[in-house]
Amino acid sequence: MLELFLVGIGTGNPDHLTREAENAIRNADLVLLPHKEANKAELAQVRLTMLQQLGVGDERIAHFEMPQRRQQGDDYGQQVDEWHDAIARRWQASLSAHLPAGTGRVALLVWGDPALYDSTLRIAARLGLAAAQVRVVPGISSMQVLCSAHGIALNEIGAPFLVTTGRQLRDQGWPECIGTLVVMLDGQCSYEQVHLPDVEIYWGAYLGMPQQILLHGRLPQAAAEISARRAQARQEHGWIMDIYLLRRPGTGC
Amino acid sequence: MLELFLVGIGTGNPDHLTREAENAIRNADLVLLPHKEANKAELAQVRLTMLQQLGVGDERIAHFEMPQRRQQGDDYGQQVDEWHDAIARRWQASLSAHLPAGTGRVALLVWGDPALYDSTLRIAARLGLAAAQVRVVPGISSMQVLCSAHGIALNEIGAPFLVTTGRQLRDQGWPECIGTLVVMLDGQCSYEQVHLPDVEIYWGAYLGMPQQILLHGRLPQAAAEISARRAQARQEHGWIMDIYLLRRPGTGC
Ligand SMILES: C[S@@+](CC[C@H](N)C(=O)[O-])C[C@H]1O[C@@H](n2cnc3c(N)ncnc32)[C@H](O)[C@@H]1O
Ligand SMILES: C[S@@+](CC[C@H](N)C(=O)[O-])C[C@H]1O[C@@H](n2cnc3c(N)ncnc32)[C@H](O)[C@@H]1O
Repeated sequence: MLELFLVGIGTGNPDHLTREAENAIRNADLVLLPHKEANKAELAQVRLTMLQQLGVGDERIAHFEMPQRRQQGDDYGQQVDEWHDAIARRWQASLSAHLPAGTGRVALLVWGDPALYDSTLRIAARLGLAAAQVRVVPGISSMQVLCSAHGIALNEIGAPFLVTTGRQLRDQGWPECIGTLVVMLDGQCSYEQVHLPDVEIYWGAYLGMPQQILLHGRLPQAAAEISARRAQARQEHGWIMDIYLLRRPGTGC
Repeated sequence: MLELFLVGIGTGNPDHLTREAENAIRNADLVLLPHKEANKAELAQVRLTMLQQLGVGDERIAHFEMPQRRQQGDDYGQQVDEWHDAIARRWQASLSAHLPAGTGRVALLVWGDPALYDSTLRIAARLGLAAAQVRVVPGISSMQVLCSAHGIALNEIGAPFLVTTGRQLRDQGWPECIGTLVVMLDGQCSYEQVHLPDVEIYWGAYLGMPQQILLHGRLPQAAAEISARRAQARQEHGWIMDIYLLRRPGTGC
């Protein structure tokens, strides 16, 4: 039987690995390792170092090139679908090449937690495996590292919080009756478009990594500082990943 | 200098501990261990076993009784405030007794992740320590174990999700423009009051523990099954902790 482990590895801090994740990687017969855009070389390096430290030699690693997503057209959903299909085919090709008998434990290293804005589960669903053959190992997410680094809670006492994307924040605005937003996947500094009074922002980039940056303050002043620091860091490193939490007083409900 | 480590330990599965959490516990000069209601003896046992396995002997453990929260009156916020004050005083008393020089590394074991519906950070804020003296170690939360156990993602592609409580769901209903809710702290089966069409529920109790239960289906049929199973399990074990994810098709936005 083939078993596929989708292993959450945290966001770059090797000490955020759980024992379950360590064991899943150590005991894998094969690790599928995608290679993405060159500017994310540091992220690929995190994965390789992790594998080395866990004793996974190159003979157990199947490298594969990530296909490109078609970017023309306004059929975003369709583009993502085709892209996931294409990735699933690459996985399948790697599996056939390295595990021709169709049995063994295969691990995929997933950034952060596999449940949070990640497509690995959706790609895995295309392989036609039984539910019991796909095992998800939770990992520390960027949202959690953001909170721990700032020493804050996600929620106010008994109150809800919304996890969302930069695009959603721009398109929908701040939803009613919710005091806290966590915003991910925001390449466009969408916090700049929040014009409510007394909103606090807790921002973090490269969380869990040596170059981690944290900033915190009240909008709109903090927005200007964060955007400047963000642009500078992005230029310096060639890439950036950032996330933030916004909190407004009361909820209006 | 006194350093306080608030260590997320996951929800009962010792393999969910991260290396960072392990090290913080191993290296602690003192572990503050609360004792709560008798019916949560199993949760206290998880902590004690964890400490034993990490080589923390009884000489490094400061046991303390959790004070009771005043339950009369409708001043809930005030009750919680007083209760947190009282807990902070117990911590302080333990610290004075065990670390009279006022220096050392102190660990508190926090269920799941310290950022998620947990008051440890708020209690710690009452000790008058500098920010750098309080260190939060993220841990795998019940929300993550729920998703990994069911093999599902928190979010639909690019879509937001709301994390909330049973009380909020009952009082506010299902908020507009949000397709996914994660509901915690629900002693009252509030999913029974969701009357939208085609809602899927993914439910889990005792997640990460040997007695873990998972159920999944479409409301309202699934609600009846879950409520029955929940009542039965609660009676059998004397306590229950459960969490669920609700997903409706589309978002209406
Ligand atoms: C495709 S999502 C993957 C999230 C990941 N599964 C997790 O659990 O954090 C990528 C987004 O996660 C956030 N992110 C991931 N890693 C990060 C890091 N190290 N520092 C800051 N943000 C990060 C950013 O918002 C980024 O746009
Ligand atoms: C006070 S909150 C603490 C949450 C915790 N900090 C976390 O990260 O999961 C308690 C609520 O968390 C959820 N919970 C915690 N542990 C759980 C478990 N093992 N199984 C199911 N739900 C759990 C339940 O909804 C419960 O009412």
